[in-house]
Amino acid sequence: MADLTLEVAQLKQQGVVPCLAVVIVGDDPASHVYLRSKQRRAKKLGIRVLVKALAETATEAAVLKVLAELNQDPKINAILVEMPLPKQINQQHILEAINPAKDVDGFHPINLGQLFAGTPRNIPNTPYGVMKLLAHYQIPLAGKNAVVIGRSVIVGRPMAALLMNQNATVTVAHSYTTNLSALTKQADVLVVAAGKANFIHGDAIKPGATVIDVGMNRTAAGKLVGDVSYQEASQVASAITPVPGGVGPMTITMLMYQIVKLTKGVA
Amino acid sequence: MADLTLEVAQLKQQGVVPCLAVVIVGDDPASHVYLRSKQRRAKKLGIRVLVKALAETATEAAVLKVLAELNQDPKINAILVEMPLPKQINQQHILEAINPAKDVDGFHPINLGQLFAGTPRNIPNTPYGVMKLLAHYQIPLAGKNAVVIGRSVIVGRPMAALLMNQNATVTVAHSYTTNLSALTKQADVLVVAAGKANFIHGDAIKPGATVIDVGMNRTAAGKLVGDVSYQEASQVASAITPVPGGVGPMTITMLMYQIVKLTKGVA
Repeated sequence: MADLTLEVAQLKQQGVVPCLAVVIVGDDPASHVYLRSKQRRAKKLGIRVLVKALAETATEAAVLKVLAELNQDPKINAILVEMPLPKQINQQHILEAINPAKDVDGFHPINLGQLFAGTPRNIPNTPYGVMKLLAHYQIPLAGKNAVVIGRSVIVGRPMAALLMNQNATVTVAHSYTTNLSALTKQADVLVVAAGKANFIHGDAIKPGATVIDVGMNRTAAGKLVGDVSYQEASQVASAITPVPGGVGPMTITMLMYQIVKLTKGVA
Repeated sequence: MADLTLEVAQLKQQGVVPCLAVVIVGDDPASHVYLRSKQRRAKKLGIRVLVKALAETATEAAVLKVLAELNQDPKINAILVEMPLPKQINQQHILEAINPAKDVDGFHPINLGQLFAGTPRNIPNTPYGVMKLLAHYQIPLAGKNAVVIGRSVIVGRPMAALLMNQNATVTVAHSYTTNLSALTKQADVLVVAAGKANFIHGDAIKPGATVIDVGMNRTAAGKLVGDVSYQEASQVASAITPVPGGVGPMTITMLMYQIVKLTKGVA
């Protein structure tokens, strides 16, 4: 991963500047914060970012038209659409309209299907970043019990597939799960993407477990916190990711990595 | 499901005869047995089956050419390729070459991705049949612990997605799983697709559980048996599927159901 700057430099010597196109519709403040983080990181690496900003009132047809142009433009290597979209726009229609070969978020059904089938191409960046963290810290996965809390298409489902593809025994828990702490106490690796501050306390964690906190919650006082009570959990777990830090920055790292990968694919 | 004959009759009144194309390459005896079962059931319902048989030595290009013709032929509503394929042919290339809208086995990555994302279109017939059995016998799934043994693309993975989409808490176990009987003893619904005769005994089953046996194993004496020791298991479980019977015939039923569904989609 440290070689990404080098790889971008090598591409430039070949006359290729990796280019990400970001489609952003409307004024969602969090989306604009995320976009700025991506722009900052891209700039540092020498990756171009083309922003296509549409008004909150944009029609689905208008977004599809922008995507059709980006899909065909040979100078665009990677495309992503910031979520959420205004409610007049069907998210599924938009995700399916992105050229799968440029779908750097890995949300197109064909990319999700490849991941699910165990032959991944483009991978959703948040769970991909979690896998890179686990690999970096050499956390064993084969034959281990992994519990993923949350079943979104963005995190929980692809996270479960990635862990299963690495031979973990994976359980996906969610809002209907009745015996959550009994489950989490059996988890050697616990990935929490529940979207609720202080959802997992120390007594729900198996001693020595690896805990990955994907939560990003804003407290009433404006503080950014995860889904896990870090103080308690860090006394039980053998490894734990903090919020902020941890998974968030890794998500952007994997985005940059996949932009370069897609660029090399066509370069 | 009982209305399938009626639906086929109604389509015929509109001048449409549902047609399944089956591509079969080589002489695998089990594939030919499965094909004959499908033909028998289709004939009973008034569904046409067009068989494209290629020699064991057929090239990948030859199979792709046949698929390209079937994909374009408006009289063909559904296409499937019998597996396994001879080893000179890349299975993934073949599955991806089937028009997703005619992919009645649901193995194309875009169909797997839709299922995985919780918005299924075409669904692999074996796990789909299991879901129909569970629904028919009104087995509760929401908030229940479901354990799936096996993670194939044909059964285990889509089975897990279907159960999760029905709000079960799903664990996928496989050859690397270290604590299998501890897991299965917590399963309210246990789906066994391990491919090993007598793999699950009565003492690994939670009293009152629903046990679905997807196994199809031939003993030395030539007897067809499942993965579950039926005699033992049936004394512990509250419901259990037998082998033969149970899941096998349901798989063909769902195939017929999806052929008709695809035919109505274009009729």
